[in-house]
Amino acid sequence: MSSSSSIDQPNVITCKAGKDLVMEEVEVSPPQPLEIRVKVICTSLCRTDITAWESQAIFPRIFGHEASGIVESVGEGVTEFVKGDHVLTVFTGECKTCKHCESKKSNMCQVLGLERRGVMHSDQGTRFSVKGKPVYHYCAVSSFSEYTVVHSGCAVKVSQQAPLEKICLLSCGVAAGLGAAWNVADISKGSIVVIFGLGTVGLAVAQGAKLRGASQIIGVDINPEKYEKAKCFGVTDFLNPNEYNEPIQQVIKRISGGGTDYSFECIGNTGMVTTALQSCCDGWGLTVTLGVPKTNPEIASHYSAFLSGKTLKGSLFGGWKPKSDLPSLVNKYMNREIQVDEFITHNLPFEDINKAFTLMREGKCLRCVIHMPN
Amino acid sequence: MSSSSSIDQPNVITCKAGKDLVMEEVEVSPPQPLEIRVKVICTSLCRTDITAWESQAIFPRIFGHEASGIVESVGEGVTEFVKGDHVLTVFTGECKTCKHCESKKSNMCQVLGLERRGVMHSDQGTRFSVKGKPVYHYCAVSSFSEYTVVHSGCAVKVSQQAPLEKICLLSCGVAAGLGAAWNVADISKGSIVVIFGLGTVGLAVAQGAKLRGASQIIGVDINPEKYEKAKCFGVTDFLNPNEYNEPIQQVIKRISGGGTDYSFECIGNTGMVTTALQSCCDGWGLTVTLGVPKTNPEIASHYSAFLSGKTLKGSLFGGWKPKSDLPSLVNKYMNREIQVDEFITHNLPFEDINKAFTLMREGKCLRCVIHMPN
Repeated sequence: MSSSSSIDQPNVITCKAGKDLVMEEVEVSPPQPLEIRVKVICTSLCRTDITAWESQAIFPRIFGHEASGIVESVGEGVTEFVKGDHVLTVFTGECKTCKHCESKKSNMCQVLGLERRGVMHSDQGTRFSVKGKPVYHYCAVSSFSEYTVVHSGCAVKVSQQAPLEKICLLSCGVAAGLGAAWNVADISKGSIVVIFGLGTVGLAVAQGAKLRGASQIIGVDINPEKYEKAKCFGVTDFLNPNEYNEPIQQVIKRISGGGTDYSFECIGNTGMVTTALQSCCDGWGLTVTLGVPKTNPEIASHYSAFLSGKTLKGSLFGGWKPKSDLPSLVNKYMNREIQVDEFITHNLPFEDINKAFTLMREGKCLRCVIHMPN
Repeated sequence: MSSSSSIDQPNVITCKAGKDLVMEEVEVSPPQPLEIRVKVICTSLCRTDITAWESQAIFPRIFGHEASGIVESVGEGVTEFVKGDHVLTVFTGECKTCKHCESKKSNMCQVLGLERRGVMHSDQGTRFSVKGKPVYHYCAVSSFSEYTVVHSGCAVKVSQQAPLEKICLLSCGVAAGLGAAWNVADISKGSIVVIFGLGTVGLAVAQGAKLRGASQIIGVDINPEKYEKAKCFGVTDFLNPNEYNEPIQQVIKRISGGGTDYSFECIGNTGMVTTALQSCCDGWGLTVTLGVPKTNPEIASHYSAFLSGKTLKGSLFGGWKPKSDLPSLVNKYMNREIQVDEFITHNLPFEDINKAFTLMREGKCLRCVIHMPN
């Protein structure tokens, strides 16, 4: 591995990267204008990595989007970052100039929003290659690599005091859950909440609900092992649908006195969105959908759910504008106002990334943090 | 027809009522406790009457739910009304004591809410009969009758000065549209709105949007005759999907600069809800569904619409609490702050009610007001 020694004219870096879970030497181009090259310190696995991987849309590709790192070099025109800055990478950027970035109501940047194409914004090219052949990006981040290049609008400078091996979780999952509870649903004190799926995102919703003073937080998961962990994030009632002969929405309506105020779909199962809608109350019941489904992309519901005054609201990254909002979320962690460490169930070296995928597929972990070699 | 002469002990009334569009002599029982008997003055046709009629759920039945009248007698325990009071009937009641009536966030009264069963709340019986056989109610109102009995929670006392032949429209359709724009969507000044279906409800949404200062109000309808009328309610752009080779949502996105701020489904076509979702913008786009579908009750949409931050919100009666809110809406009409007369395209005597149904089925009217005999 050769690393760059000049900020002005960075060289190609050759390094290890997990591509299709095959570890290969990859060349990482210098950052182009408005881009930065980041030495990844830690990256965690998010289920969306698996979903995208299994969809096999673009290959070869380097996955990974929840990460922390240190700026290694900056491209032309970058004024916000210098070498050595600590950053979180983000899968959805913030250009600060488009209609959506200028609006308080949206985090859907029209310039650096959801990057699905696997190429860089500026020239539609890749910054990774193996023996001259391009290797595609994922979600504008591709953190399963010792080094990566991202648009400067897809990274957020954070305090040097914040531990990168922990706050990488705020780069996607934990922030998404907290934001869904706070920004998207705007949970009010004393309310009743049900959460479908008690993975990291679902439990971050629970934490957000608890911090807002929800009086009852019902967690639904078919994995009974989730309950113990769920308690420490605020879940007050645990329901395993496999233990009931009646539809789980009926159970929820009963124990919540007619339906919850809020319901959250955190599994990525469109069928569960319908169940979540049926679980919340008439009049003001709000269902927030966070998941990205692996199969059946259609959300379907009988119109009567809406006729009775319910609302279905989508959420991307919990409504946070990454550059504007993430630094304060990191500060909240530093001030012990939010829990992050408790989501980390495993730490593994980069070479064991396949073990992390196995743990996630088997439902044995919340977040598994991958530590890159020094 | 014999009419009651005693308030304390009203007699059975025999009168004409439109049942299955067959005009028959019907016996109307005295009001039971907490009920009132109303001499219907005017009733207008709402498309939901046709939808329910065609669904053939309960027969024989007296339809009609958008109406004005005068209290003829009151049942035991009724303190809010006396004989001679002018009232609007409402298909969804307000008990003023349940959790939803006490909440500012809901108009879904849990006691007198959507009445589908065709019987009275108190004893599950009917107040109509023909030769001793029960004739069922519709929507807690059944205004296609010279007299009807309703729960006192399903009627709203209004100013004696307000013309009953006009304000009957505020009993359902016009109020529903205005409320969807004001209460449910809470349209903000300068925003862009698209409305699918330019019937009375859709045009009432347009009026609501105009009064909120929307900058562009796009009306979508396959009937080109709607445009002239639509202009006077504020529609600025008329789109007939049959005149375009591309999906109408693409046209809407183009002329609105990326999608509208709000979209309203006022047809009762669940497929159009999907189109409405696709027509509004990412980030803060809000789709409000008002219609009751005749076929296919499933609303379906690709999850990506929600992932990009859109919201789908249901609406019943525009979010109005009938007793709390309708009197002020009537006052707005009296003060010329809202248009109502302009929705009335036809006036017909009760015996011509079949003509009114034909007009509505053929899309030849907005509201057709049926005048009961004196």
